[in-house]
Amino acid sequence: MSGHVIVRTSVGPSPEVTSALAAAGVATAHEASGRHGLLGPALRPIYPGARIAGRAVTVLSHPGDNLMIHASIEQCRPGDVLVVATTSRCTDGMFGDLFATQLRHRGVLGLVTDAGVRDVADLTAMGFPVWSRAVHAQGTAKAVPGSVNVPVVVAGRLVHPGDIVVADDDGVLCVPLAEGERVVEAAAVRERNEEAKRRRFAAGELGLDVYDMRPLLERLGVRYVDAEPER
Amino acid sequence: MSGHVIVRTSVGPSPEVTSALAAAGVATAHEASGRHGLLGPALRPIYPGARIAGRAVTVLSHPGDNLMIHASIEQCRPGDVLVVATTSRCTDGMFGDLFATQLRHRGVLGLVTDAGVRDVADLTAMGFPVWSRAVHAQGTAKAVPGSVNVPVVVAGRLVHPGDIVVADDDGVLCVPLAEGERVVEAAAVRERNEEAKRRRFAAGELGLDVYDMRPLLERLGVRYVDAEPER
Amino acid sequence: MSGHVIVRTSVGPSPEVTSALAAAGVATAHEASGRHGLLGPALRPIYPGARIAGRAVTVLSHPGDNLMIHASIEQCRPGDVLVVATTSRCTDGMFGDLFATQLRHRGVLGLVTDAGVRDVADLTAMGFPVWSRAVHAQGTAKAVPGSVNVPVVVAGRLVHPGDIVVADDDGVLCVPLAEGERVVEAAAVRERNEEAKRRRFAAGELGLDVYDMRPLLERLGVRYVDAEPER
Amino acid sequence: MSGHVIVRTSVGPSPEVTSALAAAGVATAHEASGRHGLLGPALRPIYPGARIAGRAVTVLSHPGDNLMIHASIEQCRPGDVLVVATTSRCTDGMFGDLFATQLRHRGVLGLVTDAGVRDVADLTAMGFPVWSRAVHAQGTAKAVPGSVNVPVVVAGRLVHPGDIVVADDDGVLCVPLAEGERVVEAAAVRERNEEAKRRRFAAGELGLDVYDMRPLLERLGVRYVDAEPER
Amino acid sequence: MSGHVIVRTSVGPSPEVTSALAAAGVATAHEASGRHGLLGPALRPIYPGARIAGRAVTVLSHPGDNLMIHASIEQCRPGDVLVVATTSRCTDGMFGDLFATQLRHRGVLGLVTDAGVRDVADLTAMGFPVWSRAVHAQGTAKAVPGSVNVPVVVAGRLVHPGDIVVADDDGVLCVPLAEGERVVEAAAVRERNEEAKRRRFAAGELGLDVYDMRPLLERLGVRYVDAEPER
Amino acid sequence: MSGHVIVRTSVGPSPEVTSALAAAGVATAHEASGRHGLLGPALRPIYPGARIAGRAVTVLSHPGDNLMIHASIEQCRPGDVLVVATTSRCTDGMFGDLFATQLRHRGVLGLVTDAGVRDVADLTAMGFPVWSRAVHAQGTAKAVPGSVNVPVVVAGRLVHPGDIVVADDDGVLCVPLAEGERVVEAAAVRERNEEAKRRRFAAGELGLDVYDMRPLLERLGVRYVDAEPER
Repeated sequence: MSGHVIVRTSVGPSPEVTSALAAAGVATAHEASGRHGLLGPALRPIYPGARIAGRAVTVLSHPGDNLMIHASIEQCRPGDVLVVATTSRCTDGMFGDLFATQLRHRGVLGLVTDAGVRDVADLTAMGFPVWSRAVHAQGTAKAVPGSVNVPVVVAGRLVHPGDIVVADDDGVLCVPLAEGERVVEAAAVRERNEEAKRRRFAAGELGLDVYDMRPLLERLGVRYVDAEPER
Repeated sequence: MSGHVIVRTSVGPSPEVTSALAAAGVATAHEASGRHGLLGPALRPIYPGARIAGRAVTVLSHPGDNLMIHASIEQCRPGDVLVVATTSRCTDGMFGDLFATQLRHRGVLGLVTDAGVRDVADLTAMGFPVWSRAVHAQGTAKAVPGSVNVPVVVAGRLVHPGDIVVADDDGVLCVPLAEGERVVEAAAVRERNEEAKRRRFAAGELGLDVYDMRPLLERLGVRYVDAEPER
Repeated sequence: MSGHVIVRTSVGPSPEVTSALAAAGVATAHEASGRHGLLGPALRPIYPGARIAGRAVTVLSHPGDNLMIHASIEQCRPGDVLVVATTSRCTDGMFGDLFATQLRHRGVLGLVTDAGVRDVADLTAMGFPVWSRAVHAQGTAKAVPGSVNVPVVVAGRLVHPGDIVVADDDGVLCVPLAEGERVVEAAAVRERNEEAKRRRFAAGELGLDVYDMRPLLERLGVRYVDAEPER
Repeated sequence: MSGHVIVRTSVGPSPEVTSALAAAGVATAHEASGRHGLLGPALRPIYPGARIAGRAVTVLSHPGDNLMIHASIEQCRPGDVLVVATTSRCTDGMFGDLFATQLRHRGVLGLVTDAGVRDVADLTAMGFPVWSRAVHAQGTAKAVPGSVNVPVVVAGRLVHPGDIVVADDDGVLCVPLAEGERVVEAAAVRERNEEAKRRRFAAGELGLDVYDMRPLLERLGVRYVDAEPER
Repeated sequence: MSGHVIVRTSVGPSPEVTSALAAAGVATAHEASGRHGLLGPALRPIYPGARIAGRAVTVLSHPGDNLMIHASIEQCRPGDVLVVATTSRCTDGMFGDLFATQLRHRGVLGLVTDAGVRDVADLTAMGFPVWSRAVHAQGTAKAVPGSVNVPVVVAGRLVHPGDIVVADDDGVLCVPLAEGERVVEAAAVRERNEEAKRRRFAAGELGLDVYDMRPLLERLGVRYVDAEPER
Repeated sequence: MSGHVIVRTSVGPSPEVTSALAAAGVATAHEASGRHGLLGPALRPIYPGARIAGRAVTVLSHPGDNLMIHASIEQCRPGDVLVVATTSRCTDGMFGDLFATQLRHRGVLGLVTDAGVRDVADLTAMGFPVWSRAVHAQGTAKAVPGSVNVPVVVAGRLVHPGDIVVADDDGVLCVPLAEGERVVEAAAVRERNEEAKRRRFAAGELGLDVYDMRPLLERLGVRYVDAEPER
């Protein structure tokens, strides 16, 4: 894929899939996916409590340049999540409240960016959630080309345009589009399973017994000993 | 200490010591201890405002594996703080709300971990405080042995099982068990001392005078000069 | 500038300039300044929502030693912001609530430090804002000389005593004293400009059109393509 | 791609392509590729002077576990480069001289790993080059499943099995298999171009003139000024 | 252990143990020790090729202050390794060629430091090896007390005075004094074992077979599949 | 200093000063300067053994853009050192062998950059030394304006055009132009002093005695104790 492109695409998940994954949250959906696609812990929310899931519209920008974010907005539709990567590590404030105003008008749910964000007080007041690598006011140029809706790597994980991005206080997950329904089903199974365990644990049972781990500990040679009288 | 062990031990501080150290908080107790035992600044609380002190139950886990956390829970009793180290650097989400449910049932006060944590929205809602190196949903295996209640290094400081762990918004402190009462006394002295100073400072006095530092500045050759008219 | 000095100086911005820059905030003032002087993203506020602008009183300390912070307080007056640098990287808790009590009495607005801070729960309760590289309770010595009101580098940017420090949730900006009025004017222009754009964006216009970027994208060779049916 | 798999594949570049790319080196091939696919600067060679290009055989391992490296060796053939990723950040010494002995027998050219390596003195003596994130002797388990020859992200870039990995003192590049011949041709053009420029520069010409950048500087508003007599 | 002390001690390993561990090297001794005591990968040698093992003489210094290194030298004897920790993270050049001259006279083998080192060209010319967290010329004070020959944490691992420090191109290992002879024996077994495997691997056998891992892969559900014709 | 400028200046140190500082080296000149101006330890030489001192020609570039390096070369003369800063953190390979060819022709001694460098094998073969934050082949744009010969901050220290940059295996030092002769003299004194000490230390004397530190240790309350029989 040589050359810089803006890809128009309508491919994406159904609202049923995204609402189910938003309800499941990152940790459960990550487990349900077979533990694929979790973005690295460097991405943090600018405020606590947001939980979203939506179609990824991806941007690949030059560091210190947000031209392609401008170019991407037209490609967004309601229920999307904008996902910004840079061609090399960057913490500049490539995104702020004027972008959020444009995206909010289009029904975009939030931003995931491998770079920095600014105007975080305004974004918090708007209730426009952002997961970013940094908060930094550093201004950017609009001079270098890039691409929209190409596969990108964000915080160490591949995101294709059209994939499902789930984000909450635990971080950000990318579920491949084709996996969406399978993950929704697996998440529902997992949630029922976890709820049953939660009740048992709240009643005093131990994971050691519930998961039958004592034989494993013994097989691995872990020994129980009593502490010496003093150390 | 070859081999993997789970050490059963009832050694630990008295409730008087832990409640006094919780009241003192990390900064005061750190000073009172002679400035020993403060864990590094990489450990941060998942929500502000918690302040705890309790007996350390320690876990040494393989990176990416939480089997030994399961094994540790049975060793916990009311007033304990679970302390998790890994044999090499790890930010995986080795701990989540199902563990917290088990620990809460046993009266455990919170978690200090050199690795990652997940389900932070649930943990915050439960009021179960965690100090961790990262928030990350990354799932872990349960396949590799480790130890419980052995000495561990967490964020650069040694923690023995039975030591007193104090944690608040300033971070995490480990007070050796044998030092507990001495530190409580020294903290009380320090608090009275600080309160007296706080009143003097609030009234306009300077530390420079209260601590009699002007002669020291002079002896060190620090000179007072007036700014040049312009620069 | 050999030797250690404490420089007495009354040079600084007018209240009109500082209040205008506090109102503008970091991101707008940074743009208005021509994108100079923004401190790096490693400095973060200890609590959200504070926004200040004031005259910089600078401190250059040895790592792990807060003697010169003591020496600096006498040089502060109402509307100042204390700015602490260290001669090498340090995250120790060089500043706590007893310092804040002294500074509050003098009308100082807050602290910006390239090192660590402690007593953050107390500082938050006091409403004394701090932007720091770390939160750490590590105690410090008072034994090594340094200087007050000399030029310092903090988080990668030069701060002269008397410069205007602006800080909010987006980070910290240093506006050179001589640039203050020019930046205030440019910020006002920018704010009006942004407000006009915000209304257009809220009404559905795109930055791509408002800033007339389509010809630039074309000139840079960015092509629009339709997604292949599947991938 | 749910589940753990070892993919057998014979797809890969021709020897002509890999030898041409090894001759071009990372910087030239990166430019020739349109500036795609360069792995991040965290990967460094264990000794200077190696330069290789070969077919990627990829491994996705659990952190702290090298079982899948064992499983991968059988899939290697002469001219391959082993590429190891982990499901979360890891610096353990997952690879050492016993692995290199097995790979050397199979004609494998070297290792690129997002984790750590050990036995570096032996590997250097063998002339088996490694590009890694860390040198660390930390031992690993062989207990957790993973995959071989699936797409992986290494130091922020996607590598498919069969892609062409180029590595030298400047770092590591991944050229997609389908792009190989195009990149070889573009690299040859670039090398001739660079050689011509190198001669002109060595004779005293400036890039400013050779690339005709003076009009651009003027258009961007960059002004030439003479320094004030003193500062 | 309140207060600052310089502990005089003659406890340490025998020359047989240290020479055997130096011959084994870090990776082998680490495995032989049961995978305990390896210092973190942040410590790197200032030049390649050194390999030492000796008795640890430990120093706990204030950051930016090398007074206690001066105090430690008198406690060193032939065959020792000086091990320097700081009470908080520090990269200053606390050690240089004048210290090495003193230590060389006393027969000290090298330095392991959690802080910085300077004069590395001179140290290299002298053949005095150093493993450090940084190379930095930053000068230090001599004003703040600390301790000599107390337990310290260096790069995340506990080192007691008298323990055996092994260091080579793979990093630094601490073997507890009481474990020395056991580790020497285990290392010898491991070396013979590795040598046998090395011959088998060099002849083309696979670790997969030598370690009988195929059944494990099957039990873990790892499947062999053939690549699709194209991707 | 609003707007982008290329400052023409002939101000700089004499050859006597630079050759004396090159001979002294970074650590000695840093001490002689009163411990000012040492750049941070993140800057490392691409090969060991180089030692230079020369006049700083400074460049302030946008991240990921080397246009201003092109613009700077014309401002260089024999004996200069090019010093590159970026407006935000960047590790891209903004500099390579074609630049070095141009600079070598003009008699420039080397490069100090807060960003990345590429073609390091070629630069090493040319004997053109570089101190950089990273080695990375990432290509850069030539589209965004910046400045030449303005004050810049590099690795946390201020460099004015015309200042004296000293660089060797210990890192990089900036000596303000006006301080050059004073530092040369102080360095000569220090070298004689150090040479005398080196002889005494080589003969077995201790710094503890040579610097008369025993009374200080006693005054600071450091006590000598004998180790307990065992631990």
